[in-house]
Amino acid sequence: MSYARQMLDSYPSTFKVDASLLATTIDALKDCAQACTADAADDLSERDVTELVKCIRLCLDCADVCAATVAVTSRQAGYYSDVTKPLLEACAATSKSCGDECQRHAQMHEHCRVCAEACRRCERACHELVAAIK
Amino acid sequence: MSYARQMLDSYPSTFKVDASLLATTIDALKDCAQACTADAADDLSERDVTELVKCIRLCLDCADVCAATVAVTSRQAGYYSDVTKPLLEACAATSKSCGDECQRHAQMHEHCRVCAEACRRCERACHELVAAIK
Amino acid sequence: MSYARQMLDSYPSTFKVDASLLATTIDALKDCAQACTADAADDLSERDVTELVKCIRLCLDCADVCAATVAVTSRQAGYYSDVTKPLLEACAATSKSCGDECQRHAQMHEHCRVCAEACRRCERACHELVAAIK
Amino acid sequence: MSYARQMLDSYPSTFKVDASLLATTIDALKDCAQACTADAADDLSERDVTELVKCIRLCLDCADVCAATVAVTSRQAGYYSDVTKPLLEACAATSKSCGDECQRHAQMHEHCRVCAEACRRCERACHELVAAIK
Repeated sequence: MSYARQMLDSYPSTFKVDASLLATTIDALKDCAQACTADAADDLSERDVTELVKCIRLCLDCADVCAATVAVTSRQAGYYSDVTKPLLEACAATSKSCGDECQRHAQMHEHCRVCAEACRRCERACHELVAAIK
Repeated sequence: MSYARQMLDSYPSTFKVDASLLATTIDALKDCAQACTADAADDLSERDVTELVKCIRLCLDCADVCAATVAVTSRQAGYYSDVTKPLLEACAATSKSCGDECQRHAQMHEHCRVCAEACRRCERACHELVAAIK
Repeated sequence: MSYARQMLDSYPSTFKVDASLLATTIDALKDCAQACTADAADDLSERDVTELVKCIRLCLDCADVCAATVAVTSRQAGYYSDVTKPLLEACAATSKSCGDECQRHAQMHEHCRVCAEACRRCERACHELVAAIK
Repeated sequence: MSYARQMLDSYPSTFKVDASLLATTIDALKDCAQACTADAADDLSERDVTELVKCIRLCLDCADVCAATVAVTSRQAGYYSDVTKPLLEACAATSKSCGDECQRHAQMHEHCRVCAEACRRCERACHELVAAIK
């Protein structure tokens, strides 16, 4: 069981969203943040780095937005939906843009393929959590 | 001149938003992130900490969202408006919620008054930058 | 296989540390960052929050230090050992302090027990990686 | 007066370090974090980006370490010196490495010159705060 899930299961109060959905989202956000950080660094090691500048920029943005969203959702999503919902929407938009760009380099670079996958999973998880906290 | 402004003035390319507006926004975001981090810690030192739990939570959220937004806007706002715009909107919403809550404690706690001011300035700056990158 | 490991396996170059050790460390850091963020929030929901102020502060510090260390190690630990080593040492010290404090509340609060465990695992992983990059 | 200073002046308790020194350090850390984030992005816009890969990596590391150190010191440096001291030392080491690398590109790129200056100021501030909390 992931630590995100264990932490949710030991939460002293109830929360407004299904714990399983919340844990899945937090795990997807954590993975995406780290994959994007790593992918930006991997891109910097490639010979064709000049072709990858947009990918690097978007990975850096996506890592930052996902990291903030991990923190906010770890404080129990839905608690302040005024805060959580627009952030999840921004995170979905960012991971979509980043995933699209990584996908363009997926055949050339395996690390971009893995990162694109992490972005897609993150984007889906954000949308599902937004729908659940409506 | 702030470092944010100096960095913008030495940027090797043009960007789509007025440099002065962008520098003002970045400075407001930096200040708000730090003020919220400090305010959450100050609240924890107060005797009436149980009255301040919502304030602490929102300050922590606001600090995280502002920190991500500093980073993304420092990579030149407007570059990928699909990313920047929803994030600025999320940041405006978060600093509004946080500023409202800090304001409630402003008479009792000077640090909440200062933090509320930083949140208001941040919220305004985010709205102005969103309008400019439309 | 974790995303950290998948990203390392698709890295276009060699790195100076065993990939399995590096992936384990990155995963332990990610888990600890998130567990500490969640534990601080859980503490804020407890009735005895005044008893948990030190725990909250250390969890917030530990979450911030771990998040930075995830990012730096995801850019391939050992690359710039002048940067990576002192940061891993700081992260080990922080997760030790935080783990000790969480442990004190472990019998009373299950979320503190889980968080203490995440801190111990993180502390060990940091020490092992420091030893490997010597 | 900076927000960091205003927040310190409204702190409800005493702290173990001179407020003026602490505020100066926090401001230097904030500036360095943002300058490094911007410099990494500026480097990515340069034609000779392949010459700047080490600079970009170190700027990204330095931004992450400074951001964590802003947060920890904003929770009142010296409170838990087991946490604060090693982190400030790691931050001094990182901003030294980053400042050295930025300096190498300072004549060619004005943004690297400004960033090197922000790194030097941050490095000095970290050393002074470490000395004060001994």
